[in-house]
Amino acid sequence: MASSTSSANPIRFDAPTTIGIDVGGTKILGVVIEGSKVVAKNLNPTPKDPTKVAAAIGDAVSDLLDEFGAVGGVGVGLPGLVDYGGVLQYGPNVPGVVGLNIVDYLKQGLGLEAVASNDASCAALAEHRLGAARGYEHAVIVTQGTGIGGGLIVNNGILRGANGFAGEPGHMLIDRRGEMCACGTRGCWEAVASGAGLANIARSLVEEGRAETILGFADGISDHIRGEHVAQALQGGDADAREVVKRFSWWVAQGLASLITLLDPGVVVLGGGLTALSDQFIPDIQRQVASSVMGGAHRPEVPVVAAELGPEAGAVGAALLAQQDSYPRSVDTV
Amino acid sequence: MASSTSSANPIRFDAPTTIGIDVGGTKILGVVIEGSKVVAKNLNPTPKDPTKVAAAIGDAVSDLLDEFGAVGGVGVGLPGLVDYGGVLQYGPNVPGVVGLNIVDYLKQGLGLEAVASNDASCAALAEHRLGAARGYEHAVIVTQGTGIGGGLIVNNGILRGANGFAGEPGHMLIDRRGEMCACGTRGCWEAVASGAGLANIARSLVEEGRAETILGFADGISDHIRGEHVAQALQGGDADAREVVKRFSWWVAQGLASLITLLDPGVVVLGGGLTALSDQFIPDIQRQVASSVMGGAHRPEVPVVAAELGPEAGAVGAALLAQQDSYPRSVDTV
Repeated sequence: MASSTSSANPIRFDAPTTIGIDVGGTKILGVVIEGSKVVAKNLNPTPKDPTKVAAAIGDAVSDLLDEFGAVGGVGVGLPGLVDYGGVLQYGPNVPGVVGLNIVDYLKQGLGLEAVASNDASCAALAEHRLGAARGYEHAVIVTQGTGIGGGLIVNNGILRGANGFAGEPGHMLIDRRGEMCACGTRGCWEAVASGAGLANIARSLVEEGRAETILGFADGISDHIRGEHVAQALQGGDADAREVVKRFSWWVAQGLASLITLLDPGVVVLGGGLTALSDQFIPDIQRQVASSVMGGAHRPEVPVVAAELGPEAGAVGAALLAQQDSYPRSVDTV
Repeated sequence: MASSTSSANPIRFDAPTTIGIDVGGTKILGVVIEGSKVVAKNLNPTPKDPTKVAAAIGDAVSDLLDEFGAVGGVGVGLPGLVDYGGVLQYGPNVPGVVGLNIVDYLKQGLGLEAVASNDASCAALAEHRLGAARGYEHAVIVTQGTGIGGGLIVNNGILRGANGFAGEPGHMLIDRRGEMCACGTRGCWEAVASGAGLANIARSLVEEGRAETILGFADGISDHIRGEHVAQALQGGDADAREVVKRFSWWVAQGLASLITLLDPGVVVLGGGLTALSDQFIPDIQRQVASSVMGGAHRPEVPVVAAELGPEAGAVGAALLAQQDSYPRSVDTV
């Protein structure tokens, strides 16, 4: 790829310096990439006032612009259902961006070519181009943080679907009589296979009269247990925390088995905040996936691996998106 | 953006006359198509002796060949996991074909170019080219018979995945503490959303002291209840049969909601043997899908429609497959 930066606005492959912004419920991460290298970044809190979120995105971009001068464009990753026009149609964590045409907003405010997509799809694009899914024609990328996000690589491109909304594995129904999900539905995969899932499983151990150490970290209040408390207890070698992770791994494996049965990926990549714990659960998951997938004994084992790009994956992927000449319905990632 | 409804001009003018064979656990259906028209067919029982199934497939082809002389090739749809070489790697219903290279078998035995794929993927191809999914860039086709099959249309092509095994929605886990599936796993979607699912749900009504009429059709033996008995009671206006269908519809909708959340299709097509009952359940399913899909109020409703091609869809799709010059990893269906 060429290295010169263009002063023109349209995104071109000879202007590979781009900005990527990952908008989360609590933080806005901005990066500048040259080719595939992150050369600058900034991190700001997401304003609590929804009316100020768009301006905060604009500020993050404009700070990076001040540092780098002209760039080829900006990509924005948003948590929720982002349509082909770049509008977040559904995103409970960032009400200030829902319904806003962030693409037009950035074009008009800063004169920049902009694209927007789902944050986890951006992360998947980054892992496919530069990380753990590199070289796979078909891949499932699952990001496990407080919730679950996902990106599906199909025939070397991000699957976006009819409206741009594809790739939300967290809200597959997996246990109809199971835990309540943050989305209001009982039994979503997210309710047992995310950070919130770790907490739900720990709470079920508390109900069994166990998990005292974890409960202690949550000041003795079961409702206050978070995934972090499980991680904390795990670091101290707590047996109940290991039991939580064991049950959690089983659930993660069940959802992955469903995804593999449906999509037949060459690899499954686990990213997001829980990646820090992945050594603790990936071997278990790998074993359980093999025994749970349809016809498991008659098909190649699908490797389940940790993401490689860390917490910047979403922002880097958004910047990669902006490197494309245009944003086709199927993003070609090779 | 809505799914493109661009041109329905599916069949090439130079499309050759081809044979399609749909191999089921009980029947082998063969068709000859010219362009998109079925011009001949034959139907034979699948031999109970597994060692005779391959020869029966060969005989079906050769009978059609006798009638039509030269054809451009033969496509074979097989129930199970069919790899890119055309080998059925896993197919509990047709043990006689598992591990057999049916492509080579037909080439060597009859001198014909042959391709093979999953039967439901063939049906999906047919529905996309000629039936209810025509014009949709992204579609989910679910075939509901004794079990559940599926085919996924992604970017106008059949999604086959890394090994050719993609598209088995029946074995997504949906109710971990639910009904036992024929595959040996508890809680698969198939166990509540197929013909076997109708029977399972009817049996749960029997346990509640209901469903006397249905039970009567099964000679009073709960274990003998089949989906057909529910259909029979339904025709007589039985209220308990309506209750079975109501619960069944709920389950079908939950699985479809998961598929929509994951894949964002422009349409969902329901085919297979249960299509005969679809008037009884599609309106319910449509309503429940809309309220169950993630962000349902913030996205276009996905139409859920009955398949148009009937029981020949699989064979026709297999023949369409054979019309292709070669069988690329992503089958372009437009």
